[in-house]
Amino acid sequence: MIVIMRAGATKGEEDNIIKRIREYNLDADIYPSHGKERRVIGIIGNTRSLRDVPFEIMPGVETVKTVTPPYEKVLLSFTKGKRTIVPIRDDLKVGGKKIILMAGPCAVETKNQLLKTAKSVKEAGAHILRGGAFKPRTSPYSFQGLGKEGLEIISEVKEETGLPVVTEVKSDNMIDLVSQCADILQIGARNMQNFDLLEAVGKCNKPILLKRGMQNTIEEWLLSAEYILQKGNWNVILCERGIRTFENSVGIRNTLDLSAVAFLKQITHLPVIVDPSHATGKRNLVMPMSRAAIAAGADGLLVEVHWNPEEARSDGAQSLLPEDFNQLVREIREIAKAVGREV
Amino acid sequence: MIVIMRAGATKGEEDNIIKRIREYNLDADIYPSHGKERRVIGIIGNTRSLRDVPFEIMPGVETVKTVTPPYEKVLLSFTKGKRTIVPIRDDLKVGGKKIILMAGPCAVETKNQLLKTAKSVKEAGAHILRGGAFKPRTSPYSFQGLGKEGLEIISEVKEETGLPVVTEVKSDNMIDLVSQCADILQIGARNMQNFDLLEAVGKCNKPILLKRGMQNTIEEWLLSAEYILQKGNWNVILCERGIRTFENSVGIRNTLDLSAVAFLKQITHLPVIVDPSHATGKRNLVMPMSRAAIAAGADGLLVEVHWNPEEARSDGAQSLLPEDFNQLVREIREIAKAVGREV
Amino acid sequence: MIVIMRAGATKGEEDNIIKRIREYNLDADIYPSHGKERRVIGIIGNTRSLRDVPFEIMPGVETVKTVTPPYEKVLLSFTKGKRTIVPIRDDLKVGGKKIILMAGPCAVETKNQLLKTAKSVKEAGAHILRGGAFKPRTSPYSFQGLGKEGLEIISEVKEETGLPVVTEVKSDNMIDLVSQCADILQIGARNMQNFDLLEAVGKCNKPILLKRGMQNTIEEWLLSAEYILQKGNWNVILCERGIRTFENSVGIRNTLDLSAVAFLKQITHLPVIVDPSHATGKRNLVMPMSRAAIAAGADGLLVEVHWNPEEARSDGAQSLLPEDFNQLVREIREIAKAVGREV
Amino acid sequence: MIVIMRAGATKGEEDNIIKRIREYNLDADIYPSHGKERRVIGIIGNTRSLRDVPFEIMPGVETVKTVTPPYEKVLLSFTKGKRTIVPIRDDLKVGGKKIILMAGPCAVETKNQLLKTAKSVKEAGAHILRGGAFKPRTSPYSFQGLGKEGLEIISEVKEETGLPVVTEVKSDNMIDLVSQCADILQIGARNMQNFDLLEAVGKCNKPILLKRGMQNTIEEWLLSAEYILQKGNWNVILCERGIRTFENSVGIRNTLDLSAVAFLKQITHLPVIVDPSHATGKRNLVMPMSRAAIAAGADGLLVEVHWNPEEARSDGAQSLLPEDFNQLVREIREIAKAVGREV
Repeated sequence: MIVIMRAGATKGEEDNIIKRIREYNLDADIYPSHGKERRVIGIIGNTRSLRDVPFEIMPGVETVKTVTPPYEKVLLSFTKGKRTIVPIRDDLKVGGKKIILMAGPCAVETKNQLLKTAKSVKEAGAHILRGGAFKPRTSPYSFQGLGKEGLEIISEVKEETGLPVVTEVKSDNMIDLVSQCADILQIGARNMQNFDLLEAVGKCNKPILLKRGMQNTIEEWLLSAEYILQKGNWNVILCERGIRTFENSVGIRNTLDLSAVAFLKQITHLPVIVDPSHATGKRNLVMPMSRAAIAAGADGLLVEVHWNPEEARSDGAQSLLPEDFNQLVREIREIAKAVGREV
Repeated sequence: MIVIMRAGATKGEEDNIIKRIREYNLDADIYPSHGKERRVIGIIGNTRSLRDVPFEIMPGVETVKTVTPPYEKVLLSFTKGKRTIVPIRDDLKVGGKKIILMAGPCAVETKNQLLKTAKSVKEAGAHILRGGAFKPRTSPYSFQGLGKEGLEIISEVKEETGLPVVTEVKSDNMIDLVSQCADILQIGARNMQNFDLLEAVGKCNKPILLKRGMQNTIEEWLLSAEYILQKGNWNVILCERGIRTFENSVGIRNTLDLSAVAFLKQITHLPVIVDPSHATGKRNLVMPMSRAAIAAGADGLLVEVHWNPEEARSDGAQSLLPEDFNQLVREIREIAKAVGREV
Repeated sequence: MIVIMRAGATKGEEDNIIKRIREYNLDADIYPSHGKERRVIGIIGNTRSLRDVPFEIMPGVETVKTVTPPYEKVLLSFTKGKRTIVPIRDDLKVGGKKIILMAGPCAVETKNQLLKTAKSVKEAGAHILRGGAFKPRTSPYSFQGLGKEGLEIISEVKEETGLPVVTEVKSDNMIDLVSQCADILQIGARNMQNFDLLEAVGKCNKPILLKRGMQNTIEEWLLSAEYILQKGNWNVILCERGIRTFENSVGIRNTLDLSAVAFLKQITHLPVIVDPSHATGKRNLVMPMSRAAIAAGADGLLVEVHWNPEEARSDGAQSLLPEDFNQLVREIREIAKAVGREV
Repeated sequence: MIVIMRAGATKGEEDNIIKRIREYNLDADIYPSHGKERRVIGIIGNTRSLRDVPFEIMPGVETVKTVTPPYEKVLLSFTKGKRTIVPIRDDLKVGGKKIILMAGPCAVETKNQLLKTAKSVKEAGAHILRGGAFKPRTSPYSFQGLGKEGLEIISEVKEETGLPVVTEVKSDNMIDLVSQCADILQIGARNMQNFDLLEAVGKCNKPILLKRGMQNTIEEWLLSAEYILQKGNWNVILCERGIRTFENSVGIRNTLDLSAVAFLKQITHLPVIVDPSHATGKRNLVMPMSRAAIAAGADGLLVEVHWNPEEARSDGAQSLLPEDFNQLVREIREIAKAVGREV
């Protein structure tokens, strides 16, 4: 952190700033320097706890620049370059050489619907089944999921197909219940900054799939992951799902931010996957954006598939048919090879 | 809702669409029309429940246009033009001719801090005290509020000053506790789409202050209010607090969207207030944006004031000093007069 | 500018950076400082010419922070607090105590249309007539203005009504022609970064109205103004007209950024006005946003008025009727008084 | 286009609307339909010329929905599925099976710099040399390019290396001059809506590379292309280069919008390439985003390469070294194969 004093700031004002900094007992060096016109105070080290100090309104201060990122444990440098490989089952891990494919319907609707879809995606090569029982919906008039009944269906289909399951947990008091059937707990985009929920899943022993809020920065996303790591759960998978931008002229729902994926693979040890279905909202964009995601470095995909999208109670327009997903797996296999990975 | 069929779509495809619509038993007219080249199906009336039907992937469909807004109870037309006046106390209401000023620190820090600030804003003319005990924070390393201890301080200061209080409730299992001291329950920006929380406050009997999510559309905001009304609580105050845009070149935190305020006053019966402190993040922009908010038609302000902002544990840089707030009240009084209102 | 070296960067790497900086012969101090772990190089003064140096890829560098804003002449501190008052006529100036109202149709369509509208706005209290002869349009199929014929109509109406005129100049080779009838040359939002045009109007002796690009930052806007000042023309009026954001859920065209207005009045000596018509795109939002603009500190308004908006060839939906404008002037008069100004 | 009348609108109001539509002699069907409560007027066909009619303020109208996209000639359906292959030289075309690589420095600085870089990218496999002589720059204090001298250098290097050249044209009066050395004329992002320039290049016989404005929608981009096609020049290459969004928390310059690429390949016959250098602004993101671009369906890349980026006068931080570009070509070759294409 660098505090730049105004031209004409006094020694007393500088001392006052330094005194304030010292109160925090930082693991950091403080070194003031004096030019002809100005004083500048550099504080180099772990300055995270200074972030909330309003230096900019203290006497003599012109502006403040931060250097250290606000997160710590999520950094690849924190683990000295060791990447987190999230174990799902003995033979199934997210974040290694293998690209992991999670597929299934947006919401659980009936046992028949989930089972049919699950069987088809398993056959095509999916590793994990997705499907929501509790659905956060923008409108109170939309289908909100089957709730507990949905969880029971998930349990049955999991048993019949042998597929592990990722499903959403909406609030902290549902974690135990959802954990009974879920192999991965999903935190939805709208809950990315539900800090009580983040802390609660940070204390449980399930892998967490943390979706990026559609309007959240990469920095905020990593801070939300930090909340989970901070409480002890390091098995966090980040999932990019498109951000909200000015672009909505042609019906694409969000802008899939693949630069974020490429960037995250460079600075965090956590695995990163991509949800091309919510990102685009259009079935015929799911295929090319899935290929692009893997080419950008993603560790896996979360794709909506429905055996009969026309009858889907939510997200029908963006769901792949089983035969589309079949094709997707074949294409992803080629791309994975091209980037030195495998499906 | 208008379903436009592709050129060459068949009568059978059209019938299929109409059959699907009829399944919903809508309170709406369906009338197909046939041009030389195309078929168009108009469905005019309450089509809210059709919103999740993926018409666009059904055979023969080119595109779908919606007409009816997705919300209903929040509309001024729903109450036939009657505005909601939210009662706080016998002599204090939000949404009437009187502009309501809510002021106080971001977070409760100590009794001394809250009491000193409360007394000064009361003297200046504030009607309601603000202050948070539970603070949702982007970083796990930031001050998260005093929690229950903060609520106790709020109770004491409320008793000593006689000011009613607005304070935040972060999750549904805290509603009872917070309601013991709060006159208005605040739903924070990051919780605007925490639907469990919205439903829970919809069942309680306290007025609700619903902040706009910093990246949420007006439509989503009204749908979140609809969640609350839908459960029976009509005492909802909307609070604009700035939206996230590309503009961050000069350190202004968010873009205060006053068009939203002007627009909302035209279409909803709910009162609308403005938080210029979070919107701008800069003390010296709070004053002009407060004036602008009232000129645009806002029913009140939610302003951060701290008797010693340099020592504030959060939001110090955007907090007004008591003397600034004093000045603000004087200026707002003039603007209120100019638009036919009063403070 | 602060260059923060990586932990472990060498003295040689630091010297290399300093050597590079010295090549620029800056009016600035360079002072390196060494903590236990790191080296930091502060360069305080006019570092504008260092902005394009890619320090961040030079050996040993971790990151670079800029302090000095990239513009200079537009700053209020550059004129030592003296504000620019732009003279239009002997008795008409923009930027003083008086709020200036510019009104008229989007485009010049016929003499009758412009004359009727001009007379009505003059009578209501407008100071300047607006109207475009050359219209930059997003679609090649839209009405592009009457061109030279439009300029002739403007000249005639100007003579008959005595109103000074603001009209758009689209490219540098049209400046002389447009200057024959224009009292103020308008640079449209889409031309805000047409740097050839900016330099050309910087050399002419007409006042310039510089609209903010709908997706440009305040910093970029001030840099575009700097282009004009740099070439010698200091009579620049800034015009905020709404920015493009994610918000388009309810048909408001852009988000009027009044914080920008309040901020600019604090840091630049140039006058700032607001165009509420293009900002909102809706006739019934023009009134409240005009009031809010003046309350935020704007020096004037640029408003679309048409005596028969239904027949307008562009922007009909956002044009006020003459009687609306009449009402607007009355309301602005009240707001002006409340903020110590006059119309 | 669908005009939805208010409940209670009269037959006369409907007739008035229809009369207004008929004035335009459209190649479209008009068919009104009457439900129990409302009248709806469908106009299906080419309704482009109705876009500027302010129906929404005409008596009895509630809202208007458009169906036909505003552009026409750019549509893949307009050419009945035939894709435009842009010829550069006899053996070099953009838009076919072959992925085209354009590489070189941001700006021409010296003959030595351009020649050295050109030779290295040619050897690595680039097909076309990039380099700007006229540089539109946000700040008046930045390097603006060598101008005519730069064009001469380009001509010499072109002759010595045999590489065709893409370079920017900033204004319509420079087209002839720049055409003397350019094989492709580039329209920069900030000029995407410089309509005079678009019309002028529409009349010349050079291929045009049309960059997307960093804040422009896909719809606006296609309309700008339509301006060029409309004037007779169909050899237009679209170039995605990142859009401006809220995301700037970690120093990535723009958000590369690859969904736009995938979408465009589905609806327009024009080739689409990607500039990963300007999109990300970071050298180490260029490689993964190049791979992702090709996987998403792009027809080529425009990449900044500099033989000595530290000395670059602009964009040094995002320029690849020749050896990086070498690696990039190898990786792109693999991805191209995976999607059934070749380099």
